[in-house]
Amino acid sequence: MEFGEVAVPDGRAAAAARRRQDTLTKPGGALGRLEDLSVWVSACQGNCPPTQFAQARIVVFAGDHGVARHGVSAYPTEVTAQMVDNIEAGGAAINVLAELAGAGVRVVDIAVDRDTESSPYRVRRSSGNIAVQDALSTDEAIAAIEIGRRIADEEVDAGADLLIAGDMGIGNTTAATALVAAVTGTEPVAAVGRGTGIDDAAWSRKTAAVRDALYRSRAVHADPVGLLAACGGADLAAIAGFCAQSAVRRTPLLLDGLVITAAALVAEQLVPGARLWWQAGHRSPEPAHALALAHLDLDPIIDVGLRLGEGTGAAMALPVVRAAVATLSSMATFTDAGVSGPDGTSAP
Amino acid sequence: MEFGEVAVPDGRAAAAARRRQDTLTKPGGALGRLEDLSVWVSACQGNCPPTQFAQARIVVFAGDHGVARHGVSAYPTEVTAQMVDNIEAGGAAINVLAELAGAGVRVVDIAVDRDTESSPYRVRRSSGNIAVQDALSTDEAIAAIEIGRRIADEEVDAGADLLIAGDMGIGNTTAATALVAAVTGTEPVAAVGRGTGIDDAAWSRKTAAVRDALYRSRAVHADPVGLLAACGGADLAAIAGFCAQSAVRRTPLLLDGLVITAAALVAEQLVPGARLWWQAGHRSPEPAHALALAHLDLDPIIDVGLRLGEGTGAAMALPVVRAAVATLSSMATFTDAGVSGPDGTSAP
Repeated sequence: MEFGEVAVPDGRAAAAARRRQDTLTKPGGALGRLEDLSVWVSACQGNCPPTQFAQARIVVFAGDHGVARHGVSAYPTEVTAQMVDNIEAGGAAINVLAELAGAGVRVVDIAVDRDTESSPYRVRRSSGNIAVQDALSTDEAIAAIEIGRRIADEEVDAGADLLIAGDMGIGNTTAATALVAAVTGTEPVAAVGRGTGIDDAAWSRKTAAVRDALYRSRAVHADPVGLLAACGGADLAAIAGFCAQSAVRRTPLLLDGLVITAAALVAEQLVPGARLWWQAGHRSPEPAHALALAHLDLDPIIDVGLRLGEGTGAAMALPVVRAAVATLSSMATFTDAGVSGPDGTSAP
Repeated sequence: MEFGEVAVPDGRAAAAARRRQDTLTKPGGALGRLEDLSVWVSACQGNCPPTQFAQARIVVFAGDHGVARHGVSAYPTEVTAQMVDNIEAGGAAINVLAELAGAGVRVVDIAVDRDTESSPYRVRRSSGNIAVQDALSTDEAIAAIEIGRRIADEEVDAGADLLIAGDMGIGNTTAATALVAAVTGTEPVAAVGRGTGIDDAAWSRKTAAVRDALYRSRAVHADPVGLLAACGGADLAAIAGFCAQSAVRRTPLLLDGLVITAAALVAEQLVPGARLWWQAGHRSPEPAHALALAHLDLDPIIDVGLRLGEGTGAAMALPVVRAAVATLSSMATFTDAGVSGPDGTSAP
C-alpha cells in the first residue's frame, strides 16, 4: 500500500491572504479565527481570494464493533444499522445540519452487522471484539484503508471541494479511544469517556476493554496498519484512508469528534503532513478527543457540547469556514470604500 | 418613560421542547448547547416545535463619542461615518456575514458626527466626552432610549422574528466599558481592553478616561437613565431601549460583543427580566464583555476571537441557533425511524 506524496498547502497563497486581510475595512486581526481559516483555505486552494465551497460533502462511515456486545455502550448494536437507514431516509441530525450548512451527505456501510443490503464498500460484517482479539486481519485493515481512499477519490473526482468525515457505529468510541491511547501513550482511565452517555459500570467495562486492547497490541502501537487491525476496526481504517487521501488530493477536510480524529491521528502516521489539510471542526467532551487534537496540534472551531458523531460537529463548523472564505473574498477594502486607516492614513 | 410588562418565556413550550428532544434519534443530551437553544426558542415562540426564523434582522447603531478625540482609539473619528456608508453599500463584514446567515441589515445614524444626511433617528451630533462631561442630557438619554424602542417596534411590526443589535462608532468601547465598570463595580484597569487594537499609551488614556467618567458619575451608578447620560452615549442608550423593547415584544435577540452587552446590562436594569429573551452570540476578548456576561448570567455561543462589533459575533451565532431550531423541528423520532432506544427499548 503506497500513498501519493502529500504537498504542503501553498505558502504564497497564504501570504497573499494575510496581506489581503490587512486591506479589508476592519481593524487588523479583528476577524480572529476567521482570518486564520481564510488563510488556510487560500493555501489549500492555492489561490487568493479563495472560492466559496460549491460542493461540500459529508461521508458517514458506518461499522459495528464486537466490543459493543460487552456492555460498553448505552445502546444495543442493532442501532448502527437502524441509524444507517435513518441517515439514508434523511431523519438523522447530520441530515438536518448538512442541509443548513449546504453540504451533501453519503453514508457508507463499511462493517455493519446486518444480513441484508451487502454494501460494495463493506470489508466485513462487524469488526472483532478488541478486548479479546484483533479487530481485523492485516489484509482486512489494508483493504479498509484502500476503501476509504477510494471513497475520497470518488468524492473529489465528482467535484467535492471540501470533505467532512462522520461516523456511525455502536461501540466505535471504545476502539477510537484505544487508538488514541496507543498513539499518545495515555493511560486508559485518562482517555475513556462517556460515549453516548454510559453509567459508571459501563465506563469501567469500557476502560477495561481499552486496557486489554492496549496490552494485547503493545507490539504494534507504532505501526499504523497493525494498530488499526489490532485496536481499531474496518470503519476506523477506512476513515484513516479517507482523511489521508483527502490530503493527497489537496482537498481541505474538517474533522468531527473523537472517532474521526482518532482515525486521523493514525492517518497522519500513514501520511505525515496530511494534517495540514485538516481543521478540527468541534470540541467533543470525550477526553481522548482532546488528547488527539493536542497531538495533531489542531484547535477546534466550535464548542457547543455536541457528542453525537455522524459528522455533526464538523457540519456545525462549516458555516464558520464559509464565513472565513466570504469575508476575505467579498468585503470592501479601505481603498474601495474610502475608509481611513489607523491614525488617519488613507489606506493601511 | 414607561416600558410595557416583560413576560417570562413560555415554560410549557420549554417543557414540551425538552420532552421532544428526548424522542429524537440521538443519545439524550447529545446535541449539547443546541438542545438548550432549541428549548429557549420554543419558549420565546410559545410553541414546540419552534418555527425557523423567517425574518432575522440586524440593526447597527452608529454614533460618535467625544472621548474618541482624546487618543483612546486606533482610528480617527471620521471612520464612523465612513463605515456607516460602507455598511449601506454592503461592503462591511456584517453585510457579508448577514447574507450567509440569512439576515437583513439596517444601519441607523443615532449620533454620527457628520454634517450631511441628517437621520430621522439622530439624537445629536456625537455624544459628549465622558472623561470630562456627561455624554448626554437626561432628556437626550430618554429620547435615545425611546428611539431604540421605536426601532425595535418598527422591526417587529414589519415581521422580524429574531433581532440582533450591532454597533459602529469610534470610541464606543470606552463608553461601554465605563457602563460595565459602573454596573458591576469593577476597577477600570480590570475592565479596559484593547478595542480596535490600541497600544499601551492609548490603553492608559482609555483607562484614565473610564476612571474619570466613573468618578464624575458616582452618584448615578445605580440609575440606568442617569448612567447612560453620564457615561454612555446616544447610541448606547438607543441600544438599551432596543434590547429592552425586543423583550417587551417577546422577540428573541442575540447580543453581540462588548458594546451591545454593556447596553443590555443597563437595559436589564430598565426592564428586569428582559435578559430571558436574549442569548449571548459570542465571546469577545474585551475584559468588560466577560464581566457583563457574568452579570447577566449569559454564556456565549461562539468563540472565534472576533473583536469587530457591527453585530458580527451575533451573526456568526445565528447559524447555531438555526441549527437548534432545525434539529428539534425536523429530526426523526425513535418511533418514526424504528430506531431502538438505550438498552434496547423500542423508544425511550
